[in-house]
Amino acid sequence: MSRFDLYLNTFNAYRLEEVKKKNPSGLYDPINYLLDQPSKQIRPLLCLLSYHLYEEQWNRALPQALAVELFHNFTLMHDDIMDEAPMRRGSAAVHIRYGLNAGILSGDALLILTYHYLPRDLEPTAALEALQLFNRIAIQICEGQQYDMDFENEAEVDESMYMRMIRYKTAVLLGASMALGALAAGASALDMDLIFQCGENMGMAFQIQDDYLDVFGQMDSVGKRSGGDILQRKKTLLYIKALELASDSDRKILGEIYHRPTTLVDSDVNRVKGIFRSLRLNELCAEMKQSYFTRGMDQLNQVSTNTTVKALIGELFTQLLDRSS
Amino acid sequence: MSRFDLYLNTFNAYRLEEVKKKNPSGLYDPINYLLDQPSKQIRPLLCLLSYHLYEEQWNRALPQALAVELFHNFTLMHDDIMDEAPMRRGSAAVHIRYGLNAGILSGDALLILTYHYLPRDLEPTAALEALQLFNRIAIQICEGQQYDMDFENEAEVDESMYMRMIRYKTAVLLGASMALGALAAGASALDMDLIFQCGENMGMAFQIQDDYLDVFGQMDSVGKRSGGDILQRKKTLLYIKALELASDSDRKILGEIYHRPTTLVDSDVNRVKGIFRSLRLNELCAEMKQSYFTRGMDQLNQVSTNTTVKALIGELFTQLLDRSS
Repeated sequence: MSRFDLYLNTFNAYRLEEVKKKNPSGLYDPINYLLDQPSKQIRPLLCLLSYHLYEEQWNRALPQALAVELFHNFTLMHDDIMDEAPMRRGSAAVHIRYGLNAGILSGDALLILTYHYLPRDLEPTAALEALQLFNRIAIQICEGQQYDMDFENEAEVDESMYMRMIRYKTAVLLGASMALGALAAGASALDMDLIFQCGENMGMAFQIQDDYLDVFGQMDSVGKRSGGDILQRKKTLLYIKALELASDSDRKILGEIYHRPTTLVDSDVNRVKGIFRSLRLNELCAEMKQSYFTRGMDQLNQVSTNTTVKALIGELFTQLLDRSS
Repeated sequence: MSRFDLYLNTFNAYRLEEVKKKNPSGLYDPINYLLDQPSKQIRPLLCLLSYHLYEEQWNRALPQALAVELFHNFTLMHDDIMDEAPMRRGSAAVHIRYGLNAGILSGDALLILTYHYLPRDLEPTAALEALQLFNRIAIQICEGQQYDMDFENEAEVDESMYMRMIRYKTAVLLGASMALGALAAGASALDMDLIFQCGENMGMAFQIQDDYLDVFGQMDSVGKRSGGDILQRKKTLLYIKALELASDSDRKILGEIYHRPTTLVDSDVNRVKGIFRSLRLNELCAEMKQSYFTRGMDQLNQVSTNTTVKALIGELFTQLLDRSS
């Protein structure tokens, strides 16, 4: 049993009690279908741990933990439609299993339910603060998804555009998950800032790791094919850095492959991987990831609270960022 | 200049100031496109008038008026995708003009923006009350849309199922628009209940009128074809009442037409209209509509406040429910 199981088991008991199957089933079944699928549930876990940094009764943050998990699942449901992703967590995506309309409407309901749990059991002032914090990052997450989609048609995407996109699309929700836990526990504004930035920096590190593993990792546990981002010609960090650092001839090859009107084959993917490797982008990405990780850990350490839980959060991030596949 | 123009002009100046074009344009342009189209803006108007029932400074309710208008436009954007509606307010629907992904993501952003404006400038306790009231009806609106879609495949839809569907899908948002205005002005719980029910009953009356005009009205100002609901074989109140009241032979004809696998033609529509007319459904609907209207007016009159504004609200409802086409 991992040291996080008590948090997650308690969370899931609460979730199952709160988000039950009900009518109309066309609206609620897709919600339970997605929530029931195995997932790491990092966001609610971080929310509970961040509460526990300050107060023992971490189950008091269960509503906020549920809110961030519901919101995350809302983004998955809608993003999978927009990205035309047929699979999610090893099963059919909601819009494939239940149809487009279910993917839209059940996603909407998840977003509304998020706002139901977000302020629950908080004092009015804290509840409003939670709402404001959340509204700010929720709209950034929409902007991040839009930037991500825009990149497909953008001639040039530079590193700063890319960093903004992943900050909005991925990192701020991890920051908010932690900040909401701290807020519920009555943390100071300074601590909330630190802990938000810690989560945000860790989120940046995760996303850089994701980009990196797609190219240099082994096939992952759910059988996601290595090089999928290249096949889809996504403008990832690796691609952007490669265009920046490559020789004229390599840049030409990349340009040809990424703008070819026809589908790519394995040899194209290998050629791109070869260029990425020759530019030592594996090392560059590892350094960038490490730099975000170190910054996040520094911020966590500046929070002056329960050191046992602090160590536990550090352990979680270390585990999550130590994947080699 | 109508007596409502001052409210609406002030509202639109505020809206244009708050909801500006910005980047990423792919996210925000569709929002402005839809908000800028001509519409009656009944919900924000009712919100401001309901504030004005209690307090002179009705512009204090502008954030809540904007919230209900943003939410209404969120539902239009997503419903038009689900209902495969190509047109909205005489122009191309958002998903047609900007694509499916824009319809989804910009709709999501509208929903998040709703929650940004909903609590604005309210005292913490009132803000939370507004949030709770709104969450309750927002989830009902999703359920209403789901019931509406379910009706297509439902063998039997009875009057009570239909009434629940329109109450959720249409009526509660009118109730909430009024209740939020009253809440912002500090109305009593009793008054808020009355005013919510007033809006809800008027919403029921509107929807019954809509069903009725589709069959018995003239072609409307935006050129919507009379009999469209019959062509689409929607299970409207008229259809449900007809099945309940028709002779066996007429019921058989209706069943054949509504379950025929091929597209309907004008003669089918006229035949259905003939049956509806022979059953005097025009009179029945007019009575039902009148009954909701009367109940709503009674509730409005029970609110003990500014009688000038009360008369103005009554006038608005009378105008809206007096359309013959």
